[in-house]
Order: sequence, then C-alpha cells, then structure tokens
Amino acid sequence: LIVTVVGVGVIGGSVGLAARRRLGATVRGLDPRAAAALAAGAIEEAHDDLAQALDGAQAAIVAVPVALLNDTVSSVLRAAPEDCVVSDVGSTKRGVVAAAADDPRFVGGHPLAGSELAGVEHASEDLFDGATWYLTPTPTTSGVLLERLHRMLTGLGAHPAALDADTHDRLMAAVSHLPHVLANVLVTQAAGALGGERVPAIGPSFRDATRVAGANPELWAGIYAANAEAIADQLDAAIARLGDVRDALRRGEDLTAWQRDAAGDRRALLEAGLAGGPLRELRAAVPNRTGVIARIALRLGEEGIGIADMVLSPSPDNTRGEIALWVPEHQADRGAEVLAELGFADGGWVA
Amino acid sequence: LIVTVVGVGVIGGSVGLAARRRLGATVRGLDPRAAAALAAGAIEEAHDDLAQALDGAQAAIVAVPVALLNDTVSSVLRAAPEDCVVSDVGSTKRGVVAAAADDPRFVGGHPLAGSELAGVEHASEDLFDGATWYLTPTPTTSGVLLERLHRMLTGLGAHPAALDADTHDRLMAAVSHLPHVLANVLVTQAAGALGGERVPAIGPSFRDATRVAGANPELWAGIYAANAEAIADQLDAAIARLGDVRDALRRGEDLTAWQRDAAGDRRALLEAGLAGGPLRELRAAVPNRTGVIARIALRLGEEGIGIADMVLSPSPDNTRGEIALWVPEHQADRGAEVLAELGFADGGWVA
Repeated sequence: LIVTVVGVGVIGGSVGLAARRRLGATVRGLDPRAAAALAAGAIEEAHDDLAQALDGAQAAIVAVPVALLNDTVSSVLRAAPEDCVVSDVGSTKRGVVAAAADDPRFVGGHPLAGSELAGVEHASEDLFDGATWYLTPTPTTSGVLLERLHRMLTGLGAHPAALDADTHDRLMAAVSHLPHVLANVLVTQAAGALGGERVPAIGPSFRDATRVAGANPELWAGIYAANAEAIADQLDAAIARLGDVRDALRRGEDLTAWQRDAAGDRRALLEAGLAGGPLRELRAAVPNRTGVIARIALRLGEEGIGIADMVLSPSPDNTRGEIALWVPEHQADRGAEVLAELGFADGGWVA
Repeated sequence: LIVTVVGVGVIGGSVGLAARRRLGATVRGLDPRAAAALAAGAIEEAHDDLAQALDGAQAAIVAVPVALLNDTVSSVLRAAPEDCVVSDVGSTKRGVVAAAADDPRFVGGHPLAGSELAGVEHASEDLFDGATWYLTPTPTTSGVLLERLHRMLTGLGAHPAALDADTHDRLMAAVSHLPHVLANVLVTQAAGALGGERVPAIGPSFRDATRVAGANPELWAGIYAANAEAIADQLDAAIARLGDVRDALRRGEDLTAWQRDAAGDRRALLEAGLAGGPLRELRAAVPNRTGVIARIALRLGEEGIGIADMVLSPSPDNTRGEIALWVPEHQADRGAEVLAELGFADGGWVA
C-alpha cells in the first residue's frame, strides 16, 4: 500500500504514523516542513512534486489548512492516478465535495479526532483509535475506492461512518460550531458582567462550557467561514429558543419541565453516541455500478447503523460483486432490511 | 464551638463532618432524615425542635432546598440566640438576604462546591477544600459574627470571599446560570438538527459544553426562578451578541479577530480565578460599630483581593478593635490602600 499525505501536520502526520506502523504502508509526504515529518517518522519519502508524490499511490489524504483545502484537492485529483482514492480531513464538507466536481476517486472525510497542539511533532499513531471518521461519498463515488478507504481508516483505528455532505455540515454546525460560538459569547459576557470587579473563582460548569472559547483563532475563523450558512441557521434557532426562555423567566413560569426535556435530549444524544458490542456480518450481491456502495453506506449511516468493516469482492467477470458489511449485532436486522429496501438481498451474491 | 446544621443533605452533611473532624465542633442537626445524618457521622445530635437545636449555638448553617430557604432562614433567625451567626448555602443571594431583613446575625453564603449526588450519604469532610465560599454581608452585619463565620469556613477548608448580594447574583447569572441555559439549548437543538437521523459519535467539545444540560430539574428550576431577572438580562445580552455573529457570518466577514478576543477574555477570566501564593498580614484599628467589618470585606472583595484569614480582637473597653487580615502578597499593597481609603490605618490599633 502506497499512501501519499499532502500536508503533514498533527493530523496528516498521525495518518502517516498509523499507516506505516499498522498497515505496513509506504507513506510519502508533501509539506513545506517535510524534514520534520521525516524526523518524526510520519513519512518515509519527502516530495516536492505532486505528480511524483502520487505516482503509483493507492490513496492520498489531503490534510492542509482549511483555506488551502479546495484548491489542493483539485490539484491532487488532477495529478493522482486513475486507481487512487483521494480524501481529506477538513471539518466541513460541502465546499470540498463541490470542488471535487463528482470525481469518482474523491471521498470527503472528517476524523473526529485532533490535538490541541499543532505540528507533526505532536502526531501520534493512536490519535484515531476509536474515533468516528465521517465519510461523505456521493452517487458518483467509486465503490471500490470507497471500500479501500473505509478499510484503510479502520486499519488506522477509526470507525468510518458515511453521511452526505449537507447533513454532515448541518450536524457539525449543531454539535461543534455552535458550541464554539456559544463558548465565546459566554466568556465575553462573563468578562463584561464582572466589569471592574474580579472574581476569586469560577465554577466547573463555566470552565467546562468555555473550554473551547477562543480556540485557535485562524483555524476556527476558517471553519466558521466554510460553514457560515449552516451556523447562521443554527444561530437563528438558538436565538429563538433563548428568547422563549427569557420570556418565560420574565413571566415567572416554572422551568422544571423545560429542564427535564433537556435532560431527555441529552440522554438520547449520549445513547445515540454509543458504539461497541458484538458485530454481525451482512452480505449482499451488488451490481458493479458507480454509486451503489456509496448509496448503501449513506443509507446505513442515515439509520445510524455504524459499519465496523466493509469488504467488496468482485465477481469473476467484474459485472457484479459481493459486499460484506460488519454492523453492530443490535442493528443487524434493521441493516438487512435497509439492504433489502435498496434491492440488494442479504445472503451472498447470486450468480 | 456548637454548630447547628438545618437541612443535612450532601452540603449540610459535609459542613457537619468537616466541623466535627477539623474544628472539634459539636454539631447538631435538624432534618427529616436525621437518622441517616447521625449514621453518616455528619451530626452528633439530632433535633426536631428548632429552639432546642439552636440553644447555645454559636453558628447555624441553613442548607435546605432553595424553595424552603427564605422561610427557614426567617425561622432560624427568630429562634437563634443573640450571639449566633446564621448563614445559608443557597446559590442565589438577593432573596434570602431580603428575607433576613437586616438582621445583624445573618450573612448570606454560597460555597462553590457540590456533588452530583444528593443525600447525606455522599457528604464528605473535604468537599470544601480549596473552594471559594461567597459571603454577602450587608452594612448591618455584625463584624464579630462575620469574622467568626469567616474563620469557621476557613477551618472547613474553604476560601471565603465577600461581595454584595446583587453582584453575586449577577455574577452567578453570567458564569453559572447562563451556561446551564445554553447547555439545554445546545442539546435540544442538536437533537432537532439530527431529526430522524442518528449520529454514531459526538465530539468532546459538545460533551464538555453540554455536561450540565438538564441537570437536576427541580433544583435548577428553583435556581432559575430565584434569579430570573438577572438571568433574563444575561439572555438579552447573549441574544444580541449571537445576532451580531450571525449577521457577520451572513455578510461573509472574517471572524479571526472575534475569536481572538474570546481567547483574551478566557485568559483574563482564568487569571482572575487564580489563587494561592504567599500571604501578607494587614492590620487596622477599627471602631466597634456595626457594618465596619462587612464594609472592609466587601471593599476588598470588590478589588478582587481574597481574604485568606481574618482575626478580630476587641480593645479592653470594647469600643474599638483591631482587625488582622491575611491577603495574597501581590495584593497586599493595594489592600493597605483600600484600608487607608476607608479611613482605617494599617499598623495595629491605636489607643
């Protein structure tokens, strides 16, 4: 396996380390600080030239700063071989998926893992262990390449999960970008509320709620800009909800039921986030047609069914194939239904 | 030292345990579950009758649920001896201070410590170690009794800090109640954003930001109600700020500077929260007049000067006294200035 990492910082470097040590891959890197990446063991070949770096590669991971992401992905797709899957690690996906312009080799990616510390010196082999790694295939995505990427990410320790780019960005606006905006507002407001006064201590709920306030200004300004529309929508909704609470407080209403509803929502979210447990294998015969695997992965993702592993075996004449999917035991029945609904029988490929 | 704890749950029970073990106090308790408090060692005498429980007591701590707080404090003040300091542990202070109606024996209190778990079974001697314990004396508060309470709380392991009840409640609205409201909005909104879909994982920033969502519905509905006005004001301000961010996003503005400002505010708040380091003693001659000690404590609190310890020594004829205050070394010069501004010389009491 030859993997090319374009942009070898803490994320790209961790991909390189894990791919070398866990998959035995040959990892090439392209980065202005390639010497540091070599020294850290994250790559074993440093390249200046994109075509050379990608020559013969089976996978390319673009892990450059968000401002450079779309252009870099376009360049990588121009230079990459026909049989090379290209992915990225950006935290918003609509823009980069659009930039990839339906190229069957591209699958948007977003690992829910990171480090407070930037730079390849802080890369680590186990950064992705147990982490969800969102993938945003489209109907034009090659099934073979999606399966290769999925398997590679599983090998890095991650749990890949497919969803479409729009849903991904809306989801991130709600569960990541909005919390960052609210954290900023909280610290600014607390600083204002204290005015000239100083406080001897601040409670743990405030510390928890504001841990990410003001995080990495350049990075986060880029993320806000890349997902501006979805974040603005989330802010509209949050403003309306906060206004309702304020009005209820001013009317002297009892907020017990509201607080209890929030407890229920929190519990539901935590449960939805549960993973692990025993797996069951699902098999289906699928036509060898662009977009089929992506459609299966997306539909399972929509149902919240995590795909722990995925193996695609083509039929001898290459017109059909069999896909084997490992999903959590308790979701397997629903998974089989989904496959049937899509028109793919569970039970091995039929000649 | 005889201490009466009215309401012996996790907070009242921890006061009892620490007062018994660290101060050698005789601790009496009044609680419907007094048997459990006795079994946990939090009290050594259980009483049903308030007058008996308070007979001869030097300090009474009211730690009942917020809905019962104001009435209980009034009852305790009616039954308590002339020379007994009465305090509480409620998380808002304007209401209870008003209920105490300028009684010189009452000092509002609020320890920034707690437990997820209710009940005296979860009380612990070290719950207050290093915790800020806000006190809200008024101009009518007895200096002698304030000093006794201050010394007792220090003995429990806490760091008492004086501020007026209005400032306390405004501060709590900003650094505690608003974070709880925002956490609720975040979980509700995330649950909504996901709609029918389920997500395989939620990032750490969301978990941190929503840890307190839906916390203890009865308790928190009571806190919201007790501080409704200040929380509504904080919500007005938050809504305005969120609207500004939303508009900036829709205009495509760069938010780097905004993010950087939030980082600065966060740093300032964390630094303001720092404590510890070497202490210096300040001494001042003070007239034996109601409100003087409270005024000193409040002015030092306004300046953010923490009082690590406080000892009041009356002159032989009881018309004057000397107060010794231990404050952090780096704040001592300013502390001496504050004493001088108040008309109290630093340097021992003058005959």
